[in-house]
Amino acid sequence: MSNQVTKSENSEVLPPVGNPEIRVIAMPANTNADGRMFGGWLMGMLDQAAGLVAARHALARVVTVAADSITFHAPVLVGDELSLYARLVKVGRTSMKIEVEGWRRVRHELETVKSISGLFTFVAIDEDRRPCRVPPINETRLLSDKADK
Amino acid sequence: MSNQVTKSENSEVLPPVGNPEIRVIAMPANTNADGRMFGGWLMGMLDQAAGLVAARHALARVVTVAADSITFHAPVLVGDELSLYARLVKVGRTSMKIEVEGWRRVRHELETVKSISGLFTFVAIDEDRRPCRVPPINETRLLSDKADK
Amino acid sequence: MSNQVTKSENSEVLPPVGNPEIRVIAMPANTNADGRMFGGWLMGMLDQAAGLVAARHALARVVTVAADSITFHAPVLVGDELSLYARLVKVGRTSMKIEVEGWRRVRHELETVKSISGLFTFVAIDEDRRPCRVPPINETRLLSDKADK
Amino acid sequence: MSNQVTKSENSEVLPPVGNPEIRVIAMPANTNADGRMFGGWLMGMLDQAAGLVAARHALARVVTVAADSITFHAPVLVGDELSLYARLVKVGRTSMKIEVEGWRRVRHELETVKSISGLFTFVAIDEDRRPCRVPPINETRLLSDKADK
Amino acid sequence: MSNQVTKSENSEVLPPVGNPEIRVIAMPANTNADGRMFGGWLMGMLDQAAGLVAARHALARVVTVAADSITFHAPVLVGDELSLYARLVKVGRTSMKIEVEGWRRVRHELETVKSISGLFTFVAIDEDRRPCRVPPINETRLLSDKADK
Amino acid sequence: MSNQVTKSENSEVLPPVGNPEIRVIAMPANTNADGRMFGGWLMGMLDQAAGLVAARHALARVVTVAADSITFHAPVLVGDELSLYARLVKVGRTSMKIEVEGWRRVRHELETVKSISGLFTFVAIDEDRRPCRVPPINETRLLSDKADK
Repeated sequence: MSNQVTKSENSEVLPPVGNPEIRVIAMPANTNADGRMFGGWLMGMLDQAAGLVAARHALARVVTVAADSITFHAPVLVGDELSLYARLVKVGRTSMKIEVEGWRRVRHELETVKSISGLFTFVAIDEDRRPCRVPPINETRLLSDKADK
Repeated sequence: MSNQVTKSENSEVLPPVGNPEIRVIAMPANTNADGRMFGGWLMGMLDQAAGLVAARHALARVVTVAADSITFHAPVLVGDELSLYARLVKVGRTSMKIEVEGWRRVRHELETVKSISGLFTFVAIDEDRRPCRVPPINETRLLSDKADK
Repeated sequence: MSNQVTKSENSEVLPPVGNPEIRVIAMPANTNADGRMFGGWLMGMLDQAAGLVAARHALARVVTVAADSITFHAPVLVGDELSLYARLVKVGRTSMKIEVEGWRRVRHELETVKSISGLFTFVAIDEDRRPCRVPPINETRLLSDKADK
Repeated sequence: MSNQVTKSENSEVLPPVGNPEIRVIAMPANTNADGRMFGGWLMGMLDQAAGLVAARHALARVVTVAADSITFHAPVLVGDELSLYARLVKVGRTSMKIEVEGWRRVRHELETVKSISGLFTFVAIDEDRRPCRVPPINETRLLSDKADK
Repeated sequence: MSNQVTKSENSEVLPPVGNPEIRVIAMPANTNADGRMFGGWLMGMLDQAAGLVAARHALARVVTVAADSITFHAPVLVGDELSLYARLVKVGRTSMKIEVEGWRRVRHELETVKSISGLFTFVAIDEDRRPCRVPPINETRLLSDKADK
Repeated sequence: MSNQVTKSENSEVLPPVGNPEIRVIAMPANTNADGRMFGGWLMGMLDQAAGLVAARHALARVVTVAADSITFHAPVLVGDELSLYARLVKVGRTSMKIEVEGWRRVRHELETVKSISGLFTFVAIDEDRRPCRVPPINETRLLSDKADK
């Protein structure tokens, strides 16, 4: 499952093992003036993928507080399948750090290419929007216990 | 892998085994006047998920020619994770039929609910946009051979 | 009026008589990777057109429960005028079946081409979102009584 | 037909006779911070409706050169049906003036309310984007000759 | 500051002095079928710029009631920087008239070109959405007193 | 001018001196499930603002290659004016580092609040999309020489 992803040894060639957190088709509505996918849209996809991992670990609402090391490795083109893989790498009292990678694939081809990556920090919040505690890193409850058997 | 998905016995309770074809967060921009996700947007997600399976089987561009049996089982709400599962169920000379299901999940909860399903027909096309042959149903090349080991 | 449309004898050549339910210009924001109008957007237009007929017949809020026989006859291109015609074909206790057709026209030409069609089922709901009764099929109140004289 | 619309005597109560040029459902994606439909979106709908009349009269591509007397009579709310009626009021050598009105209706009610109006000027252009002549005002070719019988 | 802009003598060559009210990059999502920026989107940008000046003068919520003299001087292309300059030109008891101009610039060039202009009328409203008084024209409070030193 | 911005001493209270690179109204279409502005949209605004500074310095097309230290200081709410200030902080042979800050303001109030900041790296590219040299940091040509007198 995505929150226990171990990267393949050659991360430039193969995407992480496991389910993508987010997978979308890159559409013309999200292009920049260049005809390629807009960086803001790509960063939004990273943010959503990381947020899914954070929310599932915390079993609480989460908010993005920071993003670092965002790297644009290769452009994503209109029509591409874009798969976002994310894994929890560090947990504080109320915060979580999540690594995310986006891999593109031309829909009718087999090759995948790493296109974007980043490191996001989320904080879990309670119903009054105050930070709340999150479980230790090795205690993510698995969707697969319920859903992937 | 998603193009050989076998449904769990109780499809009302558990989503199909395997990777989702498409997985997105339901955003306010795609709501209808009701505040729930717009049916047109949901049908578009089904279409994209089915199209990924079709393009990967045909290893060619594909176009949607028909959609049937689209059923709205339960509304999808803003903020939900929506996962689309699709599998190839029939192959003709140039056409492919794909079953698709969409399952929603509140991001910080574990339960998933089947929300929408349908049956899509695609035709593979060559560079001149003429229909072209597709492989038999049991000969889908696997991404997993390259990428999921 | 649109809810009593009778199809012309050659529906491949001429659009239905009467007002379109929905008429829009196909814009670049709704294209797919192909540069043509995205199937999800087209299905959304069918859904809206059918929903207008349903809501006007029921004089109540309505929700889409199913869609069948969606057929993509011809692509819709950026800049086209797209007119959606819909008519009520069957009424149950709380449900309504509506046939919809979409016809495209290049804005500065006269010819129209049938591009998409489908059959939608809606259910009328009351303020608590429970299904509520709808009038018999021949008792649609006419907007034209008030507005089209 | 819409290009020969004659206004009803009480234009505050009844919309113009004939087909709307544009008819859409007001969606949440086009609201402003107020929760009502954004003025820019409304002006865009006026522009599209006027442009349809201009292009059909000129049987040529057209571009907007000016807009005047845009008046916001009443807000348009999410979920409303919005119908845009337009008629050609003046023709120059290469330019056309078109009056447009937008009328809203709650989808499950019968009453319509005039919400926005304006006067748009278009110029017909040829393939090199140079202004080109348009027919006199009483010589619009009718779609209805082909399509509305 | 933008609410006391004095136009340069040759307004065809140089944009108004002072901060733009709105400045955006023209994105593909807002193009028309022509590949240029859609008139509705451009009018929306004028509306937003004028609204900022009105709200800052009234220190109250404002609503657009009319727009006049909208002129499309030159097309805005995808990728352009578009800067909207606005200034208050007349104040009534509850209403304000604001002149707006939009200037485009290719992002990696220095030349600017006036592309669109218009005159907008806003009314200030109180919390019950009733018109409320606005200060005389020479009494706009300056953001610069707080923020631009 | 924005490319020589010097921060005010108390950057938590006052936005940078000079023109914003980008200034927009936060619209409902760009909210997340929370009703606040989506992080991906905010990062996109930072990217556009930084890109304007980079393109104007290089007088060439530029592409984003990295983003670091993105911090979400305070949420941006629907209807807010959001002003993005950016300044060039470092120049390499073909690359440029740009600091960006986003400040929100309720449209009918005077107070501004710093909401988001980050550090972006761009590379200038020539017509064949190969990296090309950029001028030293103190040689930005000023728009103000042409346009702000």
